[in-house]
Amino acid sequence: MSFDAGRAVFRAHEGGKLVVRSRMPLTDRESLSLAYTPGVAEVCSAIAEDETLARTYTWRSRLVAVVSDGTAVLGLGNIGPAAALPVMEGKAALFSEFAGLNAVPIVLDTTDVDEIVATVERIAPSFGGINLEDISAPRCFEVEARLRERLPIPVFHDDQHGTAIVVLAALRNAATVTGRTLGDLRVVVSGAGAAGVACTKILLAAGIGDIAVCDSKGIVHGGRAGLTSVKAELAAATNHSGLTGSLADAMRGADVFLGVSAGFVDEDVVRTMADQAIVFALANPDPEVDPEVAHRHAAVVATGRSDYPNQINNVLAFPGVFAGAFDAGARSITENMKLAAATAISEVVSGALAPDYIVPTPFDPRVGPAVSAAVAEQARRDGVARA
Amino acid sequence: MSFDAGRAVFRAHEGGKLVVRSRMPLTDRESLSLAYTPGVAEVCSAIAEDETLARTYTWRSRLVAVVSDGTAVLGLGNIGPAAALPVMEGKAALFSEFAGLNAVPIVLDTTDVDEIVATVERIAPSFGGINLEDISAPRCFEVEARLRERLPIPVFHDDQHGTAIVVLAALRNAATVTGRTLGDLRVVVSGAGAAGVACTKILLAAGIGDIAVCDSKGIVHGGRAGLTSVKAELAAATNHSGLTGSLADAMRGADVFLGVSAGFVDEDVVRTMADQAIVFALANPDPEVDPEVAHRHAAVVATGRSDYPNQINNVLAFPGVFAGAFDAGARSITENMKLAAATAISEVVSGALAPDYIVPTPFDPRVGPAVSAAVAEQARRDGVARA
Repeated sequence: MSFDAGRAVFRAHEGGKLVVRSRMPLTDRESLSLAYTPGVAEVCSAIAEDETLARTYTWRSRLVAVVSDGTAVLGLGNIGPAAALPVMEGKAALFSEFAGLNAVPIVLDTTDVDEIVATVERIAPSFGGINLEDISAPRCFEVEARLRERLPIPVFHDDQHGTAIVVLAALRNAATVTGRTLGDLRVVVSGAGAAGVACTKILLAAGIGDIAVCDSKGIVHGGRAGLTSVKAELAAATNHSGLTGSLADAMRGADVFLGVSAGFVDEDVVRTMADQAIVFALANPDPEVDPEVAHRHAAVVATGRSDYPNQINNVLAFPGVFAGAFDAGARSITENMKLAAATAISEVVSGALAPDYIVPTPFDPRVGPAVSAAVAEQARRDGVARA
Repeated sequence: MSFDAGRAVFRAHEGGKLVVRSRMPLTDRESLSLAYTPGVAEVCSAIAEDETLARTYTWRSRLVAVVSDGTAVLGLGNIGPAAALPVMEGKAALFSEFAGLNAVPIVLDTTDVDEIVATVERIAPSFGGINLEDISAPRCFEVEARLRERLPIPVFHDDQHGTAIVVLAALRNAATVTGRTLGDLRVVVSGAGAAGVACTKILLAAGIGDIAVCDSKGIVHGGRAGLTSVKAELAAATNHSGLTGSLADAMRGADVFLGVSAGFVDEDVVRTMADQAIVFALANPDPEVDPEVAHRHAAVVATGRSDYPNQINNVLAFPGVFAGAFDAGARSITENMKLAAATAISEVVSGALAPDYIVPTPFDPRVGPAVSAAVAEQARRDGVARA
């Protein structure tokens, strides 16, 4: 980034990116006595009698906590809570701008799983949902699983599920545009962190049977020594043809390359993929496969970058996912709700598909309403809705 | 409250009272790349190198957490976190409306002192200051003391210090308007909870030597069995003339009655006070001494109610206290800063004093700037300022 651009970025951050304001002006005794004492006591008493009234008479039912411990921030890694705060402010701003929700960054002075879980549990009555963000793998899996189990509100690790939802939406359309269905595809996932694990799970749930996951040591398979419990689970659920070896071995003849790793893949490897190959190289700012190179060998190419077509951007998912969950008063976000979100995103552009238009752009105004409606409807079908 | 007023209160609370918004619209790729990826990474990296930059480039340096466990809410008592939320939203709205600060309610699903302290410590990197609210005594004293010791940001229990600051401001002017100084006054404090303890301490610090504190068992003195550690401390610091007996015994000949208890004081007791008596009956909605009765026997009367003159309202203090602390980048709020806040409040009206005008009204626009300037200046004098 140039010096000038850097200055614009710092100027844009002066004083922070968020404001909290009162929804009504408190400029006279009457308004003060409605919003605060003595009037507020009536509302408090009513909620004390019937806690479900908090849904109507407090802001929490449309309030997201954006929670991070600062251990896996963008490509920067473990930079701690203070340095992570600008990202969480940005995320909260996106919740507001893209879905009209309220969101507050909560950055944590601990990286201990037990302490993160206990802290979020204790502040949970303040919020309607928990968006976990930039917590490193494999701790993120346990933090999310335990909070999902304990809290009666949506808990959603966006680095996992936001990415997975948009990848599935894009991959369904990429299959269609190349004359195939999801079930036809043999997929290689490069990366077994938060995004890789979640993408693999959602692709399996969507009916893709043949997936090989690779990490820095090559293909994940049951015979490999020293697998973590997460990777052992991946090995059991994927790679039914029993591939072993390197990423290059996995990619030979594969239909889809899904990069969520920041690794680099050589052109000689990309050229060994099947005809009509699909390359999703999502590492930012440097895609695993250079888009120019990918286009020489693939029918469809997507990246995480805003300066190329087919940007896989989580903002297509998370605002609508939370808005839909809140609209339905959902107690949790089910796997079906994630699948419904992906379908809704893909259907927004299904009438206009082209190899360079498999997902809507981040600013497509149809996306948020479509996702939230689909998620809310699925919440009701899944029996997790309270409204 | 009438049915109609009740309906207006509930209508005013629909959807909650606060919103979080982005300070800049995120409507195109350029704004998104400044506020979020990829631009934000530069700001994160800069803060990771030098955490003091978080003061300039995040919102936290002007962000207050309004923290409560819901155990001592208004006159309602222990109603829990969900039912306490409307009060905390109102408080956050006041921070915004009266000082332009950002504030977020954090209600806690625990009433355990260790857990409250640990939770607030862990979320503290998200905030610039901690306003403790409606936490019952005596736990509130320990929570505040431990957080003050551990956190490098202002921690302020408003039920204690907000009340104490405004009481001192009003009492100084009440003394002046009746031709006395603070040092001339013999004071009876009725109530040894959060407000009573803090008022006693600030009045002692301001030079009032003769104070007797009463709780539900009568006058607090060193010879009484079963004193808590907080009351033993009060007994040692007050009541130098060794009074024993009831509140009525204490009030005989007293110059000042300060009620922060919700008890009721009979006219026969009020009439035993000294000439030119000062009655601050702050219980809400029912003052300890009926204002009509008080006026028959006292030269100056103040209450907590907005429908009488001389309202002792914390909103005169807390917005300016935090604004001043933030302006100075204060690491803590010292005793001197509280005294400076009280002096600033009293000086706003010192040119126009009258028995029914010893404090500014809550909407006096001079108060916030005067308090914040005095608090910031004192922070610099006390060596706790970073700016």
